[in-house]
Amino acid sequence: MPFMDAEILSIGTELLVGSILNTNARFLSQQLARHGINVYRQTTVGDNVSRIAAALEEAFTRADLVITSGGLGPTEDDVTVEAAARFLGRQLVVHDPTRRSIQRRLKERRYAMTRMIARQCRVPRGAHVLPNRVGTAPGILCRFALGQKTRWLLLLPGPPRELEPMLTASALPQLLRRSRIRPGHFVIRSLKIAGHPEAQIAQKIRPYLRRRPPLTLGIYARPGEVELKIMSKAATKRQALSRAAWLEARLRRRLGGDVFGADSETLPEVAGRLLRRLRLRLAIAESCTGGVLSGLVTDVSGSSDYFLGGVVSYHDRVKSGVLGVPARTLSREGAVSSRTARAMAAGVRRLLGADVGIALTGIAGPSGATASKPVGLVYIALALDRTVRCRAYRFFGSRAEIRSRAAGTALNWLRLELLEKV
Amino acid sequence: MPFMDAEILSIGTELLVGSILNTNARFLSQQLARHGINVYRQTTVGDNVSRIAAALEEAFTRADLVITSGGLGPTEDDVTVEAAARFLGRQLVVHDPTRRSIQRRLKERRYAMTRMIARQCRVPRGAHVLPNRVGTAPGILCRFALGQKTRWLLLLPGPPRELEPMLTASALPQLLRRSRIRPGHFVIRSLKIAGHPEAQIAQKIRPYLRRRPPLTLGIYARPGEVELKIMSKAATKRQALSRAAWLEARLRRRLGGDVFGADSETLPEVAGRLLRRLRLRLAIAESCTGGVLSGLVTDVSGSSDYFLGGVVSYHDRVKSGVLGVPARTLSREGAVSSRTARAMAAGVRRLLGADVGIALTGIAGPSGATASKPVGLVYIALALDRTVRCRAYRFFGSRAEIRSRAAGTALNWLRLELLEKV
Repeated sequence: MPFMDAEILSIGTELLVGSILNTNARFLSQQLARHGINVYRQTTVGDNVSRIAAALEEAFTRADLVITSGGLGPTEDDVTVEAAARFLGRQLVVHDPTRRSIQRRLKERRYAMTRMIARQCRVPRGAHVLPNRVGTAPGILCRFALGQKTRWLLLLPGPPRELEPMLTASALPQLLRRSRIRPGHFVIRSLKIAGHPEAQIAQKIRPYLRRRPPLTLGIYARPGEVELKIMSKAATKRQALSRAAWLEARLRRRLGGDVFGADSETLPEVAGRLLRRLRLRLAIAESCTGGVLSGLVTDVSGSSDYFLGGVVSYHDRVKSGVLGVPARTLSREGAVSSRTARAMAAGVRRLLGADVGIALTGIAGPSGATASKPVGLVYIALALDRTVRCRAYRFFGSRAEIRSRAAGTALNWLRLELLEKV
Repeated sequence: MPFMDAEILSIGTELLVGSILNTNARFLSQQLARHGINVYRQTTVGDNVSRIAAALEEAFTRADLVITSGGLGPTEDDVTVEAAARFLGRQLVVHDPTRRSIQRRLKERRYAMTRMIARQCRVPRGAHVLPNRVGTAPGILCRFALGQKTRWLLLLPGPPRELEPMLTASALPQLLRRSRIRPGHFVIRSLKIAGHPEAQIAQKIRPYLRRRPPLTLGIYARPGEVELKIMSKAATKRQALSRAAWLEARLRRRLGGDVFGADSETLPEVAGRLLRRLRLRLAIAESCTGGVLSGLVTDVSGSSDYFLGGVVSYHDRVKSGVLGVPARTLSREGAVSSRTARAMAAGVRRLLGADVGIALTGIAGPSGATASKPVGLVYIALALDRTVRCRAYRFFGSRAEIRSRAAGTALNWLRLELLEKV
């Protein structure tokens, strides 16, 4: 079988009432795509034996493989195993190795095996059991025939910290080996852009957004960042890679320096790498962003190589007392002004003995706006070499969006300035 | 019709390859639950006319209402309207008011109407059109009969910032009015707990986690926070509320002061409210968290009432030069030590003239650990009244998780100390 079609069945009433986000469906889809296994449908149903069994019945009219997540817990609401047994027409039997391993684990934690936990030792007869190294519920892989074809049903636990290692470390390798599938190859390549709105980027690359499989392009917007995702599928990895490279080259030609990175690269990483390369040390003064930019910069392990620290000058007393912004500037032009931003950037650079100073001051909202200073107005200042420059921006969105857009814009400005010096 | 059963159909190949998270399904489910409309199934399919039409066909064998999201854009991949027309057996016609409104909007932005954008003016004959105040694609509400019953098909655009206001401001009110449904009442009440792992909380409230509808309890973990969600449904709002209140009282009896807030309350809000009430002003010194705690505190609009600011003392030079940590302490005991944390908390309080000082120093990882100082070791110090106390913690998880758990733990400690003074 050269290809395999899969469906994902998420189980949990908490998903149907919107209590939690379905991150498992995304994770499973990504992992299957990476192995060239097509996912044509994702379905979510509640913790209900007949609804789960009906959903399995339907899914297997279309798919060779169905992966469920959730409903393997110890409570009476957890009925995925019962539903699978009913759908397969198999009995539930106690799996002794699982029983012993749960007992051992409980003993270590000084708990006793209860009737509830004992439910987790039952599996449909003939199933292959996948050990759970994090929690108690094992994963279950069942192989059965439907018509002329072999089908696979994989039951995984709901908590992502149990599901994710179980899928990648044991379920997927076993499935690929046992099913002897030689899946197609799927390559995903991301290009990341900062400082431009999605609509503007979409306009520039419109022809490519209309492409159909096996080579497609998606555009995804986050606050302060646009991601272009190239998805390429082929019979060989080499072919999939070369198709993706062809499209990447065309996109880079259209977008030029606006592309700050690829795949899992982040803007703080890219800017940090430039600082390290140029041996420049950074200091940050934040008012409206209140620590968000420093938090972004220090998200990167090893950022202590180039980041000295910063001052969150939320109150004017800190702007004047610690950063040395003249009291006259604050009283005449206000805390949200170009002159204050410049004085903050120069002040934090001097105070910390850094090479580069960045400062942000603005109105994050929803309160605090005036007639001349609307919500979203942010001044960003950059002290670099012998100059201190300032730019005024107007950001839109919620308080959180304005803060993260301002921080991203500041980092991108720094990146572009540093690129000129490399 | 006293109740209405709904299904959600998410459309987008980007969801099936795991490129993006399906936040729309959660949002739609939450909004429907709030109006007592049951959601029994969520389905995701790709941008493909026959697969979308087949999914609609199936969904309407079970549901009175199907809401789709996505596939209303201007590109040729966007085929939701075609699929809906095929399923309904209706022609696509140009909707003139939509055409005029898109033309007006494009003119303002100096774009011309293209053949691609013109696709967005077509709707199935007889449909009710919902204006889009954010983007170009209108929403579409279709009413039709299947057997003896009236059915509703609602098509919404995919971008959350278009879908969300359209649903709450026009689609849902119109649907409720036109369908004359008197939905059941659904109440969701959340209790939030900081500073304890999920398993420990689950153990304390285990009997309640097994409850079945109409009164259920869910437990959800985020870094540094556990949320208990009470879901109560009844024929009247009063009954739904009183059931939820009954369960809330029982949970609070078991958990006591560990519950820091309810519903949308956040830990920074609750701690901030206490600071405001006690007229205390806060200053923060951060090393391993690099601005994350200050960022959390200033997420709250109006936090300038009680937050003066902070110092991100990433480099030791900042710890000694700005915060006044003795060089001897740094060289003898190291930057990650109880004595350094205390000196940072006292130093930032003195420097900013605050009433309360908090400091964090630790190993966020993955690099930087030593034999005696493992990844996850964090010292948190609190300078309050005449004492400066310090506690050592060991957090687990990724760099981001360790940082956010440390910040949450510091805030919760502050909250508990302030509660004693109220």
